Amino acid sequence: MDANAKKKVLRLIPYGLFVATSRADQKFGAGTINWVTQTSFTPPLIVAAIKADSSLHEVIAASRVFALHMLGKNQKDVATAFFKGAQPDGDTLNGFRFESGATGAPILLDAPAWFECRVVDENGRGDHTIFIGEVVDAGLRREEEPLTLRDTGFFYGG
Amino acid sequence: MDANAKKKVLRLIPYGLFVATSRADQKFGAGTINWVTQTSFTPPLIVAAIKADSSLHEVIAASRVFALHMLGKNQKDVATAFFKGAQPDGDTLNGFRFESGATGAPILLDAPAWFECRVVDENGRGDHTIFIGEVVDAGLRREEEPLTLRDTGFFYGG
Repeated sequence: MDANAKKKVLRLIPYGLFVATSRADQKFGAGTINWVTQTSFTPPLIVAAIKADSSLHEVIAASRVFALHMLGKNQKDVATAFFKGAQPDGDTLNGFRFESGATGAPILLDAPAWFECRVVDENGRGDHTIFIGEVVDAGLRREEEPLTLRDTGFFYGG
Repeated sequence: MDANAKKKVLRLIPYGLFVATSRADQKFGAGTINWVTQTSFTPPLIVAAIKADSSLHEVIAASRVFALHMLGKNQKDVATAFFKGAQPDGDTLNGFRFESGATGAPILLDAPAWFECRVVDENGRGDHTIFIGEVVDAGLRREEEPLTLRDTGFFYGG
């Protein structure tokens, strides 16, 4: 296999950009991720691939829940703020206000849309764990075309 | 959970659009899919969720290989041609010329980019099987921004 062709081709896959959050007791997890896809209608399942050596991974592995937030086209700053992991301070996470969702995961009040999952299965074969989550709650604050990885000029893939 | 909110929010997830192909001996499988994400750099892994009761699923389950093709912005007709499953005729599949790839999966000559996977694991919990494939070959015929689900106006999710 031509490693350069592989890298170029895999980087062509279109992705959304999501702020993932979780909480296990007093420990918060958060991060900006793009390796996400729905995988079933009934039950509604989502795959999210989370870097195995991240603190977000540690918290999801403990809590078995996570929330994924879509961002608006003008919210690249929110995506960037979550590159550094979770920084809770009172009712804010990385400077953005949150409430606890149905699963206990922090729900960011600025996100136009989000959903929450309970982990029903996982696969640890790669350098990211594939968490298979059943969608158990979802909310839409405003209808907005979501920010994509391409919009930001970031790359994560290849 | 508000089922309508769940549907609306999950339909906001951005996706690419891929023609998936496979071949088990003389039996061809093909279909247009969008539930795809990379899930690991090392090894390079891809998740593709394939409808459990489709003939494409049957062929991948037998062959343990598949190819995914990206399409160009002007190739919505190619995506539409593969809604009906695989229709091989000589050196064409659904009217488009192909060659056999490294895995034996048909590689469409009109696609600007493609990659081939060997199935290393799977999860059958939902109404689609989650195939985890290791990328074993990839090719780029021309650099082109790929067709997305949103470009086509189709929906598959929710």
